[in-house]
Amino acid sequence: MSDPVACGIYAAIVTPVEADGAIATERWARHARRLLETGCHGLAVFGTTGETQAFSVPERQAGLEALLAAGIPPEALTVGIGCCARSDTVALARHALEHGVTRHLMLPPFFYKGVDDEGLFRAFAEAIEAVADPRQALLLYHFPQVTAVPLTTGLIDRLVAAFPGTLRGIKDSSGDLAHTLTLVEHYRGLVVFAGNDAHLIAVLEAGGAGTISAAANIAGTHSRAAFDAFERRDGLAAGAAMEVVKAVRDALQAQPMIPALKHAVGQLAGDPDWARVRPPLVELEAARGGALLDRLAQAGPPTVRR
Amino acid sequence: MSDPVACGIYAAIVTPVEADGAIATERWARHARRLLETGCHGLAVFGTTGETQAFSVPERQAGLEALLAAGIPPEALTVGIGCCARSDTVALARHALEHGVTRHLMLPPFFYKGVDDEGLFRAFAEAIEAVADPRQALLLYHFPQVTAVPLTTGLIDRLVAAFPGTLRGIKDSSGDLAHTLTLVEHYRGLVVFAGNDAHLIAVLEAGGAGTISAAANIAGTHSRAAFDAFERRDGLAAGAAMEVVKAVRDALQAQPMIPALKHAVGQLAGDPDWARVRPPLVELEAARGGALLDRLAQAGPPTVRR
Repeated sequence: MSDPVACGIYAAIVTPVEADGAIATERWARHARRLLETGCHGLAVFGTTGETQAFSVPERQAGLEALLAAGIPPEALTVGIGCCARSDTVALARHALEHGVTRHLMLPPFFYKGVDDEGLFRAFAEAIEAVADPRQALLLYHFPQVTAVPLTTGLIDRLVAAFPGTLRGIKDSSGDLAHTLTLVEHYRGLVVFAGNDAHLIAVLEAGGAGTISAAANIAGTHSRAAFDAFERRDGLAAGAAMEVVKAVRDALQAQPMIPALKHAVGQLAGDPDWARVRPPLVELEAARGGALLDRLAQAGPPTVRR
Repeated sequence: MSDPVACGIYAAIVTPVEADGAIATERWARHARRLLETGCHGLAVFGTTGETQAFSVPERQAGLEALLAAGIPPEALTVGIGCCARSDTVALARHALEHGVTRHLMLPPFFYKGVDDEGLFRAFAEAIEAVADPRQALLLYHFPQVTAVPLTTGLIDRLVAAFPGTLRGIKDSSGDLAHTLTLVEHYRGLVVFAGNDAHLIAVLEAGGAGTISAAANIAGTHSRAAFDAFERRDGLAAGAAMEVVKAVRDALQAQPMIPALKHAVGQLAGDPDWARVRPPLVELEAARGGALLDRLAQAGPPTVRR
């Protein structure tokens, strides 16, 4: 993990909460450790799957510190820093760097819609310049279905030209494989991750970096098996592992993804408090939870166990 | 102003910034005072027009304190509190209440899209219950074009039933007059404000409360004249004033609204630093600024003067 932007399988880790909405840090660290032990190269904390926007900047900083204090190595972490307010983004980035977490995933400011690339460029540029730390390895986070603020190649081109040392990659959560492959093709100097686990092998074949994905919370072992098989050119084994990954993802996508993931992690780990989500999300209904667990059992052996 | 939810004309005040992005508090207080002196019943600070999401919670709290320290009466203010994180919303609400600002405008959490009413209900309910202050007078903020998270009547019905003392009104920034009138009709116990100044008289005729609007930053005098004329049943005077209000609004809407407003305030006040905006917005181009000022001059005498 000496390369701060290593390729591989990264779980967009879910964030467990107590009944009062606080981050359940012990439960979180346990899951983080399990994911790293069962195959994930690393973890993306405080991404979309992590219900990040439900937590304030101080809550996010305390949460990161708790993970590190529990022994999760900072080199294994990529941390979400993109907020609507520059000072929040900068505070999160500086705090992460102070704690040795150098790889940062940055959303654009996502409140106003229909904004120009010039305004988005300034938002990224101001944050990068305010942090001004050569250790920062920044991944742009493209998730237009959620943010409604797409990152165009025109914008990325400008950022790459202006901040070649800092801008190191892109996470494409568009779910559009053709778009991900375009990014891989266009940005040979960057690491490009797909948000959709099902696209792992196609992305690797094109020269992409891997996946930062939600489903890796329960299928990370299989994504890793597919990644390793691809590395040793064992197409058969890669294909078999990907069958499990795709089945898990399909099962999750038939439900509201984040509540489904937390329900599944809780059931598989024997820790049903995992199911809690923060508003505006709501917990999975019991009947849906049962159907989900049945489908996951058919998909293959889970990453998460008791 | 003893009624914390009085009807009238409220300017969704723009927030001037220094070159480094900090809130230019003296300039802001000067504009606030001018708006109150030239006709606005009150000011909505830290709304969409105020570029609120560009500022952190501490920046917003310090900004509010600066306005109050400059002599702006707390009774004249409605403050935006709605954030994606409950703890941020609650911190802003408590801080405002501590400083005597009891009327709060609350966006839904706006990151996730396609969320259920149940999740939105919980988001509002948790915030209201955490604040737990009988002085709080809450206005729901419906602005689906920007948030992409609409507030349905089903949701509002539940909130009204659960929190009748706290939930006092709605600001409808949908721009859809039919929708605003439906809300006025349906929620007789609430004050309903339109976000679109052009709808002022129609909303008042239906029994609505008035407007909380962007254009009042430069046309508040005329909106107030229309409001007062309506009150004294002088339809002719109301109509004449509304002609100016509509012309100003049309001129602004032909441009990116917030940069246009700040450009116009700056030019009219002889203080061009007003034109600065925070990313992801960008300043109005010079040619557009000239065209805007020409149209405003034709519309009528401005609220803002040197």
